[in-house]
Amino acid sequence: MTSTFGNLFRLTTWGESHGKAVGVVVDGCPPNIELSEKDIQKELDRRRPGQSSVTTPRNEPDRAEIMSGVFEGRTTGAPISIMVMNEDIDSSKYEKFKELYRPGHADYTYEKKYGIRDWRGGGRSSAREQVGRVAAAAIARKILEKHGISITGFTRQVGKIRIEENEIDYGEIEKNPVRAASSKKAGEMEKLILQLKAEGDSIGGVVEVTAKNVPAGLGEPTFDKLSADIAKAVMSIGAVKGIEIGDGFRVAEMKGSESNDELSERGFLSNHAGGVLGGISSGQEIIVRAAIKPTSSIRKEQKTLSRSGRDAKLMVEGRFDPCLCPRAVPVVEAMVALVIMDHLLRQKAYE
Amino acid sequence: MTSTFGNLFRLTTWGESHGKAVGVVVDGCPPNIELSEKDIQKELDRRRPGQSSVTTPRNEPDRAEIMSGVFEGRTTGAPISIMVMNEDIDSSKYEKFKELYRPGHADYTYEKKYGIRDWRGGGRSSAREQVGRVAAAAIARKILEKHGISITGFTRQVGKIRIEENEIDYGEIEKNPVRAASSKKAGEMEKLILQLKAEGDSIGGVVEVTAKNVPAGLGEPTFDKLSADIAKAVMSIGAVKGIEIGDGFRVAEMKGSESNDELSERGFLSNHAGGVLGGISSGQEIIVRAAIKPTSSIRKEQKTLSRSGRDAKLMVEGRFDPCLCPRAVPVVEAMVALVIMDHLLRQKAYE
Amino acid sequence: MTSTFGNLFRLTTWGESHGKAVGVVVDGCPPNIELSEKDIQKELDRRRPGQSSVTTPRNEPDRAEIMSGVFEGRTTGAPISIMVMNEDIDSSKYEKFKELYRPGHADYTYEKKYGIRDWRGGGRSSAREQVGRVAAAAIARKILEKHGISITGFTRQVGKIRIEENEIDYGEIEKNPVRAASSKKAGEMEKLILQLKAEGDSIGGVVEVTAKNVPAGLGEPTFDKLSADIAKAVMSIGAVKGIEIGDGFRVAEMKGSESNDELSERGFLSNHAGGVLGGISSGQEIIVRAAIKPTSSIRKEQKTLSRSGRDAKLMVEGRFDPCLCPRAVPVVEAMVALVIMDHLLRQKAYE
Amino acid sequence: MTSTFGNLFRLTTWGESHGKAVGVVVDGCPPNIELSEKDIQKELDRRRPGQSSVTTPRNEPDRAEIMSGVFEGRTTGAPISIMVMNEDIDSSKYEKFKELYRPGHADYTYEKKYGIRDWRGGGRSSAREQVGRVAAAAIARKILEKHGISITGFTRQVGKIRIEENEIDYGEIEKNPVRAASSKKAGEMEKLILQLKAEGDSIGGVVEVTAKNVPAGLGEPTFDKLSADIAKAVMSIGAVKGIEIGDGFRVAEMKGSESNDELSERGFLSNHAGGVLGGISSGQEIIVRAAIKPTSSIRKEQKTLSRSGRDAKLMVEGRFDPCLCPRAVPVVEAMVALVIMDHLLRQKAYE
Repeated sequence: MTSTFGNLFRLTTWGESHGKAVGVVVDGCPPNIELSEKDIQKELDRRRPGQSSVTTPRNEPDRAEIMSGVFEGRTTGAPISIMVMNEDIDSSKYEKFKELYRPGHADYTYEKKYGIRDWRGGGRSSAREQVGRVAAAAIARKILEKHGISITGFTRQVGKIRIEENEIDYGEIEKNPVRAASSKKAGEMEKLILQLKAEGDSIGGVVEVTAKNVPAGLGEPTFDKLSADIAKAVMSIGAVKGIEIGDGFRVAEMKGSESNDELSERGFLSNHAGGVLGGISSGQEIIVRAAIKPTSSIRKEQKTLSRSGRDAKLMVEGRFDPCLCPRAVPVVEAMVALVIMDHLLRQKAYE
Repeated sequence: MTSTFGNLFRLTTWGESHGKAVGVVVDGCPPNIELSEKDIQKELDRRRPGQSSVTTPRNEPDRAEIMSGVFEGRTTGAPISIMVMNEDIDSSKYEKFKELYRPGHADYTYEKKYGIRDWRGGGRSSAREQVGRVAAAAIARKILEKHGISITGFTRQVGKIRIEENEIDYGEIEKNPVRAASSKKAGEMEKLILQLKAEGDSIGGVVEVTAKNVPAGLGEPTFDKLSADIAKAVMSIGAVKGIEIGDGFRVAEMKGSESNDELSERGFLSNHAGGVLGGISSGQEIIVRAAIKPTSSIRKEQKTLSRSGRDAKLMVEGRFDPCLCPRAVPVVEAMVALVIMDHLLRQKAYE
Repeated sequence: MTSTFGNLFRLTTWGESHGKAVGVVVDGCPPNIELSEKDIQKELDRRRPGQSSVTTPRNEPDRAEIMSGVFEGRTTGAPISIMVMNEDIDSSKYEKFKELYRPGHADYTYEKKYGIRDWRGGGRSSAREQVGRVAAAAIARKILEKHGISITGFTRQVGKIRIEENEIDYGEIEKNPVRAASSKKAGEMEKLILQLKAEGDSIGGVVEVTAKNVPAGLGEPTFDKLSADIAKAVMSIGAVKGIEIGDGFRVAEMKGSESNDELSERGFLSNHAGGVLGGISSGQEIIVRAAIKPTSSIRKEQKTLSRSGRDAKLMVEGRFDPCLCPRAVPVVEAMVALVIMDHLLRQKAYE
Repeated sequence: MTSTFGNLFRLTTWGESHGKAVGVVVDGCPPNIELSEKDIQKELDRRRPGQSSVTTPRNEPDRAEIMSGVFEGRTTGAPISIMVMNEDIDSSKYEKFKELYRPGHADYTYEKKYGIRDWRGGGRSSAREQVGRVAAAAIARKILEKHGISITGFTRQVGKIRIEENEIDYGEIEKNPVRAASSKKAGEMEKLILQLKAEGDSIGGVVEVTAKNVPAGLGEPTFDKLSADIAKAVMSIGAVKGIEIGDGFRVAEMKGSESNDELSERGFLSNHAGGVLGGISSGQEIIVRAAIKPTSSIRKEQKTLSRSGRDAKLMVEGRFDPCLCPRAVPVVEAMVALVIMDHLLRQKAYE
């Protein structure tokens, strides 16, 4: 199980949903960066459960504690260990999943892979592992900000409700519980989510993240393309089933004369490429979209299989997000931030 | 420039479009596998230029030579070096791109990154680098076949012409120059491609690859998810702008009750997940789709920028594929094969 | 700062001497291994300070707490996070080293590298970082034991007192505070160490580690030779200045006819090679020796430099080991165990 | 078989002794470095066989050909592929080793590991693999020279003949076939080597390498210590059985008051540490010594084992170096250069 990500700026996450704690070790962080638990808490609060009516009622304060690597308020270059204790744990609802594989979850595949499975709250496969990613990215973002780089995500689509290009208003994102970049669409999305919640069902969506002021030249042109590393980073988030850069799947219907971004003395005249050419950042905005599947946990009877190989039925009760997008926004942002941070260091090595 | 891919089964590609040769070193190949140049040639022939009217007329035989790692017809465990000499080179058409950045190409970003650029035939950023990938994957595929694993790709879409689920006929793929899995749609696609070629333009598309008989349990659940590694692998192909696993972006509009794959004693009852759950293979077919952008080289006047910072116009002449899909099919297959091969070895380490 | 070691069995250590805690995350541990805190404590107790008159009086219980990766007493395949709180901290003695570089220590080089330095107890450069290594290796050793592999270290030499080949008695090692494999030499060594302690000085030595029953075939023949990875692993222990495999530096004076290990139907007839041929284990005992420098902290006046660039004098007071060998024994063992564990998994991938 | 070394400046070697060619791919080389085949040839000529009476008579010109990564005389940032064709091949003498394991060689362990073995000239385990290392290091050295860093090696000891500290004269090294840093000792060494050659035997030695002007701050303090990476790099050379930094094994007999390097306003007052403190370069000379075993191939009857498991006798005939030191000098230099080059880039990433 490779729980380490990145080449120079590297994180290693650990912890299970209903274990003692979840955490992350960040190695390769540049020294002399001001860092406090507040910096990390700010991002964890955006991801934490229980923040609104459209998220799970599991109520976790997700309090970050820095265990190492910071001295007198500054990073020292040593690995930064961050820990978040698990507090609001109730494993009782999971007792029955000892023997039954929840559809859409990793229960079956963990069992096949390891022959053993921590069934409490989904164990290691729980989205709670993302706490470490978001905490690590909070550090990366502090450094990226110094370079003028900002990373902003929002819910672009929920079900069939999609924010059109001309509706996007970044100022709205943190004002609504869906993290939609449009107050009008946010209302529609919220309504849809609450309706599905009432039905015991869930709904998918699309999260879009834009990175601004990324300098030209980041990314390695063969395998470690900036776009390829972003694709891996974002696809490594449990619920993501698709990833696009720039025009993404729309290129299938485009001609070269439509898709090429012409240049001029003032720079590029369009950004179909989404800020990456030949795997290397062009200096334009990097635009990433992730397809987020509907939450697998639903209060509806489903057919399944028992560990002993028998047909069975189950209904998943517990505390779930009816739509994963609102809390996925900071996670997709985090993964994009981590990739850019790593490539920023990699590129510095050659300058 | 990280030209190495994979953890246990690793390849390192090298070479430029108009340099002496292109090649690959495959390290970590299991010993005692029968291997000859014919095994590699077979796959290179599917990717080579000049194979049909819808591909570039550059006529490269792409003859693979094994330089090391094979003894008396078998792999020894030592690194396998494979070389393909560049033969049909004509750099004269590229002279003018010394000073002008071709839109849609990596000219501008290479210049920003390295301050130097081999402009002959696109240099390192040329699709010719893929020769090494396909050659390495030819070895992987021989081993995968022994495990009963087969990997098949086809052109799913060109422009607006899309093969519907019920039209897919794998037997048709290698019978038409587009590598479409439908003879009817293949004809329409070919017509569209030739029309755009006549206009000096190009067209995008979608390539789909299916891996069959992949055992359950491959993939590492945190960052090195099978799906995440596939996403990186496929997105590292120059022309790919989007990647999907299973239902991909369609999940955005789905409910959990639609998207979950129920189980029974006979196995899964559907495959919306595309064969990967929680980043681990489930034993079902792994289904991957890649959005392929239209060829950037077009015989149309485009605005651009000169190295000295001036507005300019250019028309790209040379020998191009009007649609990249037909030759991208074996490349996407190759990248999927390489990831599965690597994870097969990784999983064996723990059994 | 790369705090991660290993390819398949990987550990990441974190923590400073006088910070909140030290710890380690072990990733890639096979599932279904019985594991409790007792398994880890056993090894930490052999390394912990304050265990005898020849070690530092800093009195740390070094209580290991498993934070993740173990479920119902077994490993799950998930990363295992282990934490040891720092308890007996007294940073007051270190206040003066804020401004003065201790000779023999990493104060000067950390300052040059990072421009910032956690001076409390040596911070990250303290031998306390080894807690994580020993904890991780305790897990590896449980697995190696299942394969019949045992790893035993002892103090071979302290100052000029050296245990001769024919004096080695493994049964004596844990019976004396020096961990010498000879009760007679142990007494002499202890006397010498206590004498130097009384003088405020310290003394170097040699630690020898033998790995038994390592199967033939481990190690990768080019760069990741078993011997090369062991060399790195052992040299990464702060106090080690030299490393030998088998006859080591004695080969300089040997002829080929003396150094070659002949073979017969009963196996090898000698073991000058120390169990590694061409970087691959031969099935014989693997024999490793490490040169351990005298403790840098001494109660003697030394010339040094201040941070502001001035000549200065200092005497290092605090709580030190007068000889590092007794506590280095479990650490060298740990590093050898970790390398063998990693290569065992790597080799399994190809079988 | 991991044939790749380095993190940012990475090389991958390939090729067997009696195969078509040996080669290397260097990835991560900074762009815009002037580079020609002459730069590489210069170093290969120092390692090539047949250069003097004390080396093997196999007569290989070892002509380096650059296959990629250089454009108009400068590196482009793309992988640099270098190939050397094998020319003076005579496998007939090796026919009998198909069935017999040569003592001291890797025949037995390769067979155990892979179940197959290219017995021609030692195949992959031949020292000929070092051609790729030396070629890659020739590039690194050009870059290091720009930083004022020079790396010089010499034969310090052959058999019992050792050059004392006060006898070292760097100007003599390339003037004698032994590469000894003393003309007087060179003569004695040469005589000893020729005597053993006449006897059909071989002799071991010690190679010492010094790196000058390495800036303070290189090396990562936990596992990737500069000293640890050097230890691995040097121990990965086939014939090396021991490695020392600075005082090396002499520290075993030293007191802290003798071993510590005091500091003053003018810098360090001694260099017992060999230029590395806490794993980080101190700005002093980095001093490395490697124990080189006597050549395993000797013209003397030895007991051995056949593949079919029977007692046997063999005498190794062919063309061998009676002492490996003279040709090992450029190889140890190469490995030290590669490590410093890699860490130079790594450190730049954080500045």
